[in-house]
Amino acid sequence: MVLMKREATEEQIQAVCAAIQEHGLKALVLPGGERVAVGIPSAIPPDLRPVLDQHLSAMDGVDQVIHITRPYKLASRDFHPHDTIVRVGHVEIGGGRFVVMAGPCAVESYEQLSEAARAVKAAGAQILRAGAYKPRTSPYSFQGLQREGLEILRTVAREVDILTVSEVIDPRDVDMMAEYVDILQIGARSMQNFPLLVAAAKSGKPVLLKRAPSATYDEWLGAAEYLLTHGNEQVMLCERGIVPIDRTYVRNTLDINAVPVIKYHSHLPIIVDPSHGVGHARYVPAVALAAVAAGADGLLIEVHPHPDRALSDGVQSLNPEAFAHLMAQIAAVRAALAPLTTK
Amino acid sequence: MVLMKREATEEQIQAVCAAIQEHGLKALVLPGGERVAVGIPSAIPPDLRPVLDQHLSAMDGVDQVIHITRPYKLASRDFHPHDTIVRVGHVEIGGGRFVVMAGPCAVESYEQLSEAARAVKAAGAQILRAGAYKPRTSPYSFQGLQREGLEILRTVAREVDILTVSEVIDPRDVDMMAEYVDILQIGARSMQNFPLLVAAAKSGKPVLLKRAPSATYDEWLGAAEYLLTHGNEQVMLCERGIVPIDRTYVRNTLDINAVPVIKYHSHLPIIVDPSHGVGHARYVPAVALAAVAAGADGLLIEVHPHPDRALSDGVQSLNPEAFAHLMAQIAAVRAALAPLTTK
Amino acid sequence: MVLMKREATEEQIQAVCAAIQEHGLKALVLPGGERVAVGIPSAIPPDLRPVLDQHLSAMDGVDQVIHITRPYKLASRDFHPHDTIVRVGHVEIGGGRFVVMAGPCAVESYEQLSEAARAVKAAGAQILRAGAYKPRTSPYSFQGLQREGLEILRTVAREVDILTVSEVIDPRDVDMMAEYVDILQIGARSMQNFPLLVAAAKSGKPVLLKRAPSATYDEWLGAAEYLLTHGNEQVMLCERGIVPIDRTYVRNTLDINAVPVIKYHSHLPIIVDPSHGVGHARYVPAVALAAVAAGADGLLIEVHPHPDRALSDGVQSLNPEAFAHLMAQIAAVRAALAPLTTK
Amino acid sequence: MVLMKREATEEQIQAVCAAIQEHGLKALVLPGGERVAVGIPSAIPPDLRPVLDQHLSAMDGVDQVIHITRPYKLASRDFHPHDTIVRVGHVEIGGGRFVVMAGPCAVESYEQLSEAARAVKAAGAQILRAGAYKPRTSPYSFQGLQREGLEILRTVAREVDILTVSEVIDPRDVDMMAEYVDILQIGARSMQNFPLLVAAAKSGKPVLLKRAPSATYDEWLGAAEYLLTHGNEQVMLCERGIVPIDRTYVRNTLDINAVPVIKYHSHLPIIVDPSHGVGHARYVPAVALAAVAAGADGLLIEVHPHPDRALSDGVQSLNPEAFAHLMAQIAAVRAALAPLTTK
Repeated sequence: MVLMKREATEEQIQAVCAAIQEHGLKALVLPGGERVAVGIPSAIPPDLRPVLDQHLSAMDGVDQVIHITRPYKLASRDFHPHDTIVRVGHVEIGGGRFVVMAGPCAVESYEQLSEAARAVKAAGAQILRAGAYKPRTSPYSFQGLQREGLEILRTVAREVDILTVSEVIDPRDVDMMAEYVDILQIGARSMQNFPLLVAAAKSGKPVLLKRAPSATYDEWLGAAEYLLTHGNEQVMLCERGIVPIDRTYVRNTLDINAVPVIKYHSHLPIIVDPSHGVGHARYVPAVALAAVAAGADGLLIEVHPHPDRALSDGVQSLNPEAFAHLMAQIAAVRAALAPLTTK
Repeated sequence: MVLMKREATEEQIQAVCAAIQEHGLKALVLPGGERVAVGIPSAIPPDLRPVLDQHLSAMDGVDQVIHITRPYKLASRDFHPHDTIVRVGHVEIGGGRFVVMAGPCAVESYEQLSEAARAVKAAGAQILRAGAYKPRTSPYSFQGLQREGLEILRTVAREVDILTVSEVIDPRDVDMMAEYVDILQIGARSMQNFPLLVAAAKSGKPVLLKRAPSATYDEWLGAAEYLLTHGNEQVMLCERGIVPIDRTYVRNTLDINAVPVIKYHSHLPIIVDPSHGVGHARYVPAVALAAVAAGADGLLIEVHPHPDRALSDGVQSLNPEAFAHLMAQIAAVRAALAPLTTK
Repeated sequence: MVLMKREATEEQIQAVCAAIQEHGLKALVLPGGERVAVGIPSAIPPDLRPVLDQHLSAMDGVDQVIHITRPYKLASRDFHPHDTIVRVGHVEIGGGRFVVMAGPCAVESYEQLSEAARAVKAAGAQILRAGAYKPRTSPYSFQGLQREGLEILRTVAREVDILTVSEVIDPRDVDMMAEYVDILQIGARSMQNFPLLVAAAKSGKPVLLKRAPSATYDEWLGAAEYLLTHGNEQVMLCERGIVPIDRTYVRNTLDINAVPVIKYHSHLPIIVDPSHGVGHARYVPAVALAAVAAGADGLLIEVHPHPDRALSDGVQSLNPEAFAHLMAQIAAVRAALAPLTTK
Repeated sequence: MVLMKREATEEQIQAVCAAIQEHGLKALVLPGGERVAVGIPSAIPPDLRPVLDQHLSAMDGVDQVIHITRPYKLASRDFHPHDTIVRVGHVEIGGGRFVVMAGPCAVESYEQLSEAARAVKAAGAQILRAGAYKPRTSPYSFQGLQREGLEILRTVAREVDILTVSEVIDPRDVDMMAEYVDILQIGARSMQNFPLLVAAAKSGKPVLLKRAPSATYDEWLGAAEYLLTHGNEQVMLCERGIVPIDRTYVRNTLDINAVPVIKYHSHLPIIVDPSHGVGHARYVPAVALAAVAAGADGLLIEVHPHPDRALSDGVQSLNPEAFAHLMAQIAAVRAALAPLTTK
C-alpha cells in the first residue's frame, strides 16, 4: 500500500496508480480523512515487489510504501504449512523431534575432540559440533586448525560414531568441507554472505543458518530464502543471541521470542545456541531449558572436556558433568510437556 | 582502577595517586608494558565511588576509570547470600516458591474484573493484576479508570478472596494506593522515577519493580537499591522485555538471560512478564514456559475474559481457557525440574 | 488498515467490517492476491484510534493492524506547518533562531556556579543550565543540592543576568521550581513520567523535553503531545543520545538523524545535548558542530570551570576555554550555511 | 586484570598467578577490600591476549577478566600517531583532505551511469560510486548487473575521467574486480567476512571498509586490523548507520559519534555514508553536513539522475540538483571551520 503525503495532488495520485498498472497490477485509491492511500489488491510476484517498492517510494507525493507482504515465500508457513523435517544420517530434526548438537567451540587436538565427542555422545547428544575455521574479531586470536581440524573431526566422528556440524566461512571451501562434515554451519557473521549461502545451498548438505546479532526476523528468513531458492530445503535456523543492552554480565541477549515467532511464521526447524546466547557457562543451563520449554527443535551447546584449557570460548563451555546433568533436565521438561502440547 | 594514557607523565600519575590518597584510600601504581594503571586495593564505600570516579576521570593523563565494583550493594547477593522472600498476605515469593499474578491490563468495569478474577483464581493464580492508572504513549489512549478502578479492584479482590498488584505512577498517589492494593507495581517507564521509588519504599508495601526497556542490569539493580536504602526489603524485580531489533512481529524482546543473571547477582525474586515481553497472545505461553524453566520466581500475565473487547493490550491477553491450559503446563515443568535442581 | 490472516473466513472479514462501522467509520474490503485487507477510508479521531486498534487486533482472523496515522496530532507539522517559536524572556527559540544553553551538570556551590555562569555568558550562551535535583542511577551518587541549589541558581542568574533551565523530577516540585527557573527540563528518565508532564504543562513555563534513551520518535512526540494537550505550547525537544551498541568509548549514541526527522515531522524546536550524547569532553565539540550543521535550533552543553573537580559529569564537561572556542566555531558554521539554506 | 570472586580461595589466587607466569608474564596480587584482583604489569603480545583471556576466564575462583588493551594494534593511533593518507590515483584521502564519492546505488545501464557520473563530477565529486554486485536481503531483489556492470563502470569512468569505488562480496571476485575499479568497497554485511578481507588486503587496492550495523568500534577496528596485518595500509573506514531504535521514519541511525571517536583512536581516514545512514533523500543533506562539521574525511553519497526510476535505493538517492546544492554547502562549512581547527 502506498501512503500519499497529505499535500499530494490529484496528478501525483494518478501517477502512482499508473505506475502500478504499468506493472500489470490493479490500483485502488483509498480516500482517507487526512490523506489518500493507494492499495494494490492483487498478488505481487516476489521478484516484482522490490522493483515496485523502489519505483513508488521515490515518486512525488508519496510519503511511505507500506509492505504487507514478506521478503520471503519458500520459508513461510503460509506456503508450506507442515513442518520441514531435516534428515541428517539417521537423525530427523523438526516436526516434534528434538536434537542436541554439542561439543567444543574449536577442534584443538585429537585428544581434546575425542574426549569431548565421547562425553557428549554418552550424555545423549546426536551431533558433534566443533569448529575448524574460526571467524574471530581480532586477527591475533586463534583462527582454528583449519584443514587439519577437519581431518581430526572426521576421524573422531567415525571412531565415536556421531554426526557432525562445523562452520564454513569461505565459499571456496564449501565443496571440500562437504566431504568432512554432515551439516554445514553458516555463522552469525556470515548470515548475509550471499555467495557463501548460494555455495552452501548447491552443496546439497543440510545447513544450519545462524542469525546475525542485529538481524530482523525478515532478514534472517530472507537469508534462508537464498538457500531455499537455490534448491536446498534442508535448512535449520539457529538463534544465538542478539546485541545486548550491555555487555557487563553477558555476551549477547538470547532472543527467546524467536522460538515461537519463527515457528509460527516458518516451517523450518529452529535450533537455539544458549552458549553464545548468554556467554557464560553458569547461565547456560537455565537458558537451554528455557529454549526447550519454548518449543525449540534442538540445541547447539558448547561442551569442552577442560573449559579452563580451551583455546576459545572456554568461559561459556560446559564441562561434561554439567552437560550430562542438563541433558537429564532437558529430557524431564520434554517429557512433562509432551502430553500437554496443543497443536 | 585508573587506566592512564600511554603518554601520561610521571607527574600526572603521581597526581592521580595523590587524589586517591586524599580520599583516605591506598593507591598502587601498576607499571604495564604500554601504559600505567593505578589500582585502589581497598574497599571503596559506595557513596564515595561516584565522587571518586568523577575526580579521577577528569584528571589530566587519565584515559579511563574502570569499575570493578557495582553501583548497588544491598541488592547484591555478595552481601546477602540467601534468597529474599517477599511476603504478601499468606503468599511467599522467592526462595523456591512460585507465584502467578494474572488479570487484565486495565480495570474496565466491575463485571469485567470480576469475571477475570474468578477465572484466574480458578486456574491457580494467587494474585490479581489490573491497572487503574495507565501510562500510555499517546494522551488519546485510555488512561485507566483511576480512583474508580481502584474501588472496583478492592471490591472484587475481597469478593473473590485474592491478593492484588496494580501500578502506581505518581508519588502523590502512593499512600492512597497502599490502601487499595497488596503490591505496588513500578512500571517500566517509571523504573528510574526516583521520587516515586522513594515514596513506594516508605509505604512499606511490597514493590514489583519492572525493568525499563533499555535498562542495563546495573541500572535496574541500582533502582532496586533506592527501594532498599529507603528501608523497604520487600522488593521483586520484573523482566518485561527490552527494545527489540524490529517491531514487525513482536512488541519487545523478552530478555530470558535476565533470569539466571539476576538470580546469580541478586537475592531478590525475579518475576517475568511474558505478555509485554513478546506482545502477542499466541506467543505468550511459549515465553511463559521458558521463564519457568529458566528458574523465574513467578509470572505476571495478562488475562482478559474477552480479549477482543479489551480497552488496552487485548492483542497480548490470554483468554481464560488459554490461561488455564498454560497453568497446567507450568505445573508440569516445575514438577519435572524440581528433583533435578542443583543448588 | 487491518490485514487479515490468509485463512480468514468471510464471516471474520465481515465481523471486522461491522466492528469498524460500529464506531461510525467506513470499512472497505481490499481483496488481495494472498490475503484480504480491510481499509478505513475516513479520518479516525485520535482518541478513537487506540480503542479501535485494540478491538480489531484481538479479533479472530486478524493478522495485524497497520497504522498509517501517528499517535500525535498537535505536535505534528501536518496540523501546524509553521515553526513554533518558544519565548523565554527576551530570547526566542525556533524558527531559525539559535540558542545555546550551557553550564555545569549540577549546582555545587555559589562560587562554582557564579564562575560557570560568567564564563558561559561571556562566550555567548543565553541560558544557564545547572541541576539542583539530580536523578542518578545509584542512590550513593550525589543527588544535587536541591532547594539550596535552586536558591544559588536564582541568585547567580540575577547577578549575571542570564536565563536558566533546570531539571524537575517530581510533580510535587513543579510549582515551586517555576518560581526559580525560566525553563523546566524534563529529563530523559522522565520523558514518559506523565504526571510530571501534566504538572509541567500546567505550570505555563517553557519546557525542554529530553528524549528517553530508547524512545522512538513516536514515543517522544507522544510525550510532547501530553504537554500540548494540557495547554502548554512552549515546548522544546532535546536529543541527548540513545542506547549505544557498546559503552567502551562512549556513554550514548547521539542520534543526529533526529534533527532533520523531527524538523520535518514537527514544528517544535529541537535542541541537541552533545555532552550526554557522546559522554566525553574530547568528543563534544565535534558532535556539537554536527548538530549545528544538521540544523538544530540550539545546544545544551555541560561546561564546568574545573571539570576535574566536578561532582558529576566532569568527564563530559568542557572547560571555559574549550567552550569559548566551540562558540566561535558554531558561529562560523551558522554564518557559512545561512545564505545557502533552502526552505 | 583478573578480578577474583569474593569467595576465591588463596589456592585459586595462586593458581591464577601461576597460569600468568606460565606464559612468561608477571602477576601482581592486588588485595582489595571486598575481593582480590590479579594484575599483569607487563606488555602482553597481541596474539597471546585471547589465549590468556580464555585460560584465565575459565579458571576456578575467577569472576571476570578485564581488558585494558584493545583487540587491534596496527589500526591504533597509539602505534601510528600520524593520520594515514590513502592515495587513489591523484586523490589523497585523510590528513585534512576531503573527498566525496558519489553516484547511484547500482549500475543499471550505460546511459544511467554516464549521466550520473557527469553530474557528480560536475558538482565536484572526485570518485564515482556504483554497485555491480548487490547484496540484498531478499533473493527476489535486483542483484546487480555483475560483470556487465563492471564493464559499464570502467567504460564510463574512462570517458568521464573519474575514479571509482564498487563493492566486492565474494573473495573469488577480488582479483577480477581489482582490474575494474580503483577502490574496493567491503559492505556492511561483509565487515567480518574474513576470507574476503584477506583477499582484498592482498589485492593491494585501497579498501573502503563499511561498519556492520551492530558492530562495536572494537569489532570494526578489529576488521581493519585484518586488512593491515595482511599488508594493506590503504584502508578507509566508512560509517553507514547502526541499527535504529525504530524503522518507522529512518532506515538506520547514523552514528555521528563515530567520527571523533575513530579519529581519536585510529589514524585511518573515516568516510561517512549519509544515504544509508538515514535512508531518505530528504534527510541526507542535513546528515551529510553534520558529518563534515564533525570532521569526517569524506562522504559517500547516493546520487541518481532519476531517483524515481532507480532499481535500488531510489528513496535515499539525491538528484543531481540537490547534490550540487549540498556540495556548495559542504564547501562553505569546510571553509568556515578551516581557520578554527585545533590540533
